[in-house]
Formats: sequence, C-alpha cells, structure tokens
Amino acid sequence: MQPTSYQRKLTYYVATSVDHYIAHDDETMDGFLLEGHHVTDYLSSLRDYDTVLMGRRTYQWGFQFGIEPGQPSPTYSHMMQYVFSKSMEQYRHDQLQVIRDDPADFVQKLKTEKGGAIYLCGGGQLASYLMNAGQIDEIILKVNPVVFGSGIPLFSDLNQHTCLALSDAKIYDNGVLFLRYAVRG
Amino acid sequence: MQPTSYQRKLTYYVATSVDHYIAHDDETMDGFLLEGHHVTDYLSSLRDYDTVLMGRRTYQWGFQFGIEPGQPSPTYSHMMQYVFSKSMEQYRHDQLQVIRDDPADFVQKLKTEKGGAIYLCGGGQLASYLMNAGQIDEIILKVNPVVFGSGIPLFSDLNQHTCLALSDAKIYDNGVLFLRYAVRG
Repeated sequence: MQPTSYQRKLTYYVATSVDHYIAHDDETMDGFLLEGHHVTDYLSSLRDYDTVLMGRRTYQWGFQFGIEPGQPSPTYSHMMQYVFSKSMEQYRHDQLQVIRDDPADFVQKLKTEKGGAIYLCGGGQLASYLMNAGQIDEIILKVNPVVFGSGIPLFSDLNQHTCLALSDAKIYDNGVLFLRYAVRG
Repeated sequence: MQPTSYQRKLTYYVATSVDHYIAHDDETMDGFLLEGHHVTDYLSSLRDYDTVLMGRRTYQWGFQFGIEPGQPSPTYSHMMQYVFSKSMEQYRHDQLQVIRDDPADFVQKLKTEKGGAIYLCGGGQLASYLMNAGQIDEIILKVNPVVFGSGIPLFSDLNQHTCLALSDAKIYDNGVLFLRYAVRG
C-alpha cells in the first residue's frame, strides 16, 4: 500500500517592515506595532497550526523572554516544535525536537505524515532554504507601517524569483497589513 | 518679505516585489504585472505631479525604450524632469535638466518654489539619500505578487528606521497592492 499523502501545507508567517525586514540587525524589532487587533487576530490564527518550524536563532531569540534552553515556546504551546540546527544540544522534550537533518528533506517527509498545517515562524535563512527547495506553500505577512532600511531580510538568499497569488488581505486601522499569498508551483 | 513656503510634497512612488525590490540586479523587472487596472490607475495618477526626479541609472534605463540621451521621458511628458548626476552631460532641453547639486539641497529649494506635487520615480540610492535627509513626504508602493529574492532594493541604505502612516490602500483583482504611506516627521 502506498503511504497516504496528507498534503500538509507549510506557511511562512512573519511580521515585516514595509521594506520587508523581519528584524533589525541586532534582532530587535523596534517599530513593529505590538498592540491592536492584528495581534489578537494573529494569536487566534495560531490555532490553525499543529506544528511549528524555526531556525536556531529564532528559537534562541525567545531566551530573552524567559524560555529556558530545551523548553518549547509557550506561544506555540499546542504545537509540536522543531528547531533546525546542527550545533544545538539534542534536548529531550515531548514537544520540542532539534532537527539535524536537511530541513527540506525533513519537511518533505513531515508533509507525508498525518497532521495539520505547519507554521514556519522564521528566520529568513531557513525560509530561503525551504523556499529554494519548493517546500513553502504559502506566505503570510504582517506588514508594519515602518521602514527599517537595514536588518534581517524576509528571505536571505533566494536563487530565483517566484510568482505568488494574493489570496487574502486585511487592512487594520493602525496601518498594519495582513497579506496571504499562495506560492505558485 | 519672506519667501512663500509652497510645501510641495515629494512622493517616492515605485513598483516593488513582495520582498521590496524595485528591479532585478540586471535592472530588468520580470515578474511585475504590466497589464491591468493598476497600470491605468498609475498612468492617470501621473496627472497629480508636475515635476519628476530621478537618478542617472533610472533615466538611462529608459534608453532601451528609445529615449535619446538628452531627451525627456515621454511617460512624464507634462512634467519638468530633473536627473541627478555628477557625471552626465549637461543637456540643454526645456523639460529636462541634469542636476549636479546635492539632491537634498536641490529638493529643499524646489519645495519653496511655486509648483505642484513632486514625483520621485527612483532609484533606491537617490530615494535613500533623500529619505535620510528628511525630504520624502510620502511613499506609494505598487506591490506585485512576486518575490525576487535579490535585486535593487526599495532603499539602498537608510541610516535609521522611520515610522509611516498608511493613508490609502487598494487591492487589485490581479493581486497588485497600491499602498500610500505618509512619512512621519
């Protein structure tokens, strides 16, 4: 019997500046709006995902908010959390796993397993790698009304341009945009 | 008598990818949508401006479409056209002038002269320079549903982050976004 294809969707869902930086060079995010309906909508939308993927720097960024090394992020408390790193310790936790495998191979396999939608919360390097490998199905941007001018870009290094299709958009009173794009195969 | 302040507004109005490149590295724009209501709206909106500013590369980019060196761009046929360059020949044309002065000083003076709205059509270097000098009042983006991954950025080199206020937005059926932001002083 062939394994069932569950076609779990991978969504890169991230806050950006108007010039599409996901953080300043020092990983701070001054200028992003931290209050408003876009935040409550975002937190509600996390219920759509049962799995979250992140790079090492994105995971470790949470340490400043009290996450202990090896602990899952409480923001994604209902999700299985995978952190891609070849250098991080192999922590033992039911809800957190460090992945040393190639991220594209891992995601390809994950998509064939039973489960719900997969959330890629960052960063730009991991997103580029998975985008180049054709594994990102959807991009959701929360565009904040600020220009950074420099910082950590949405994608660090794409090897080709990729057409998108805008599938949903919302404009908040505070000027934040919610934009949902399907990645065209 | 004090000179009248006309407070002419300078708008940086440009097409971008979702990851906010205004062109590929080779100055092509494959992936931007060249047909649709966003194009006719754009061409209509040019009537709002009586002056256009551009950098040398942006001006010379038009040569491939048949503009002869020293001729103004027919797209902006009703506008006075200023090209900033220290190296370009000083052409003589009623409607086109090469400016060797500092762009920020020139714009500051231009804003005190009688006239209408001023359109900055590119590129990213000139826009950065004028943004850093506090001379850009408004940014209008036509965001095309494509990611470039690399290319010529919206701003090449800003020296600080700048808060914006979204003042107008339109979503076209083809997925192009029209976004108008006021630059917060």
